[in-house]
Amino acid sequence: MSKLKPQEVEQRKREIIEAARLCFLRSGFHQTTTDEICHEASITPGGLYHYFGSKEEIISAVIEDAAHTIVNNLRSTAEASGDLRSAVRALASLFFERIRDPQLDGVTRLDVEIWAETLRNEKLAEITRESRALRREWLETLICRAVDEGVYTKDVDARGLANLIMAIFDGLRLGRLLWRDDFDLDGALKALVLMQTGRLMNGNHVALAPKAPAAGRS
Amino acid sequence: MSKLKPQEVEQRKREIIEAARLCFLRSGFHQTTTDEICHEASITPGGLYHYFGSKEEIISAVIEDAAHTIVNNLRSTAEASGDLRSAVRALASLFFERIRDPQLDGVTRLDVEIWAETLRNEKLAEITRESRALRREWLETLICRAVDEGVYTKDVDARGLANLIMAIFDGLRLGRLLWRDDFDLDGALKALVLMQTGRLMNGNHVALAPKAPAAGRS
Repeated sequence: MSKLKPQEVEQRKREIIEAARLCFLRSGFHQTTTDEICHEASITPGGLYHYFGSKEEIISAVIEDAAHTIVNNLRSTAEASGDLRSAVRALASLFFERIRDPQLDGVTRLDVEIWAETLRNEKLAEITRESRALRREWLETLICRAVDEGVYTKDVDARGLANLIMAIFDGLRLGRLLWRDDFDLDGALKALVLMQTGRLMNGNHVALAPKAPAAGRS
Repeated sequence: MSKLKPQEVEQRKREIIEAARLCFLRSGFHQTTTDEICHEASITPGGLYHYFGSKEEIISAVIEDAAHTIVNNLRSTAEASGDLRSAVRALASLFFERIRDPQLDGVTRLDVEIWAETLRNEKLAEITRESRALRREWLETLICRAVDEGVYTKDVDARGLANLIMAIFDGLRLGRLLWRDDFDLDGALKALVLMQTGRLMNGNHVALAPKAPAAGRS
C-alpha cells in the first residue's frame, strides 16, 4: 500500500467500487460475498481490506459513487444544451430514456434491497439520504434557475418539483420491476404527458387535487 | 377445530390476520416471530398452525386482506358520491388525505420489506402482484367509466392512468419514509397540483415529456 501514489490508491479504489457494483447488480446486496468482489476486482481479501473495512463500507462507496455519476450525467446533459429551456427539455428526454432503459431493473432491484436494509441500518440510511440529497440539490438548483428565467412559472417551488420528479421516477421504476406485466409503462408515461399538460380531464382540471384551485380575486 | 362452524373459522382467521398485521407493522416482516403473533392473537402455536401453515402463509393472507380493505375503502368512497365526477374528486381527496396520514409510514415500511422479499421469493411476488392487480383493476374500471362519461378526456388510457396514479402514490410514500427531512411532501404535492393542471411551465407545456405534443393537423 505504502508504495502506491495517492492517485494510484484512488484508481484502485475506483476499480474495486466498479467491480463491487457489478457484483451487487448481478447477485444482490445480501448474496454478494467479499470473495466474489475480490474475484471480480482481481484482488486478495487482504488487499481489499486495505481499501474497505467491510461489505457495508463497499456498498456505501457504491451508493455515493452512483450519486456522483448520476449528477455528472445530468450536468453534462444540461451543459450540452444551448439555454435553460433546452436543458429542461433534454433532461426530460433523459427521464423518458432512462425509465425505458432495460438495464434500469437491475439498479432498482439493488435499490429496493438497499432501501429495506436502511430500515434497520441507520448508517446506511444516512448515506443513501445524503446521496439522494446530492441529486435533489442539483435538480433543485436547475429548476430554481429555470423559474428565474421564466421557463417554469413563478408558482413553482423548486424543491417540491425536484422531489416530485424524483418520486415519480422511483414510483415508475418500482412499477416496472415489481408489477411486471400488470404495469404498462408506456401507458403510464402517456398518462404522465397528458397529466402535466392539463389534458386529463374535461371541464375542470382536477384529477388528483383535493379541490380546484381558487379563481384569482385580484 | 372440527367443533367450529365455518363462519367461526373465518372469524378466527380474520382475528389472526389482524393480529399478525399489527405485529408486522410494529416489528417488521423479518423480526416478527410466530410467538409474537400467537401472543397478539391469544392463540397457541398449535392453534395458529390449524389456520396457517407458515409465517409466509400469514404474510400472504395479510397482503391479500389489505388489498381487499383498500378496494372496499375506494369503492365506498366512490359510491358515497353522487356522480362519477364527484367520485373522481372524492378519490382524489382520499389520495391527498392518505399520503399525508402519519400512519402511512408503517405500512410503507412493511411494503419495502415485502418488496425486497419478493425479489427472492416468487410465491410471495405472485401474491403481491395479484393484490396490486386487484387495486389497479378497480381503479382502471372506474377511470374507464369516467372516460365514457366525459369526465376524463378520450385521450386517457384507463390502465395507463391507473398505473401512473399508483406509481405516483408509491413514489411519494417512499419519499416520505426514506428521505425524511430531505423530502418535502407538501412541496411535492403542490408541484403535483401544478403539474396536472398544466401550470408548471410558461410558453409551452413540456416539463417531463420528451417533446411537445404535435399540434393537431386536422
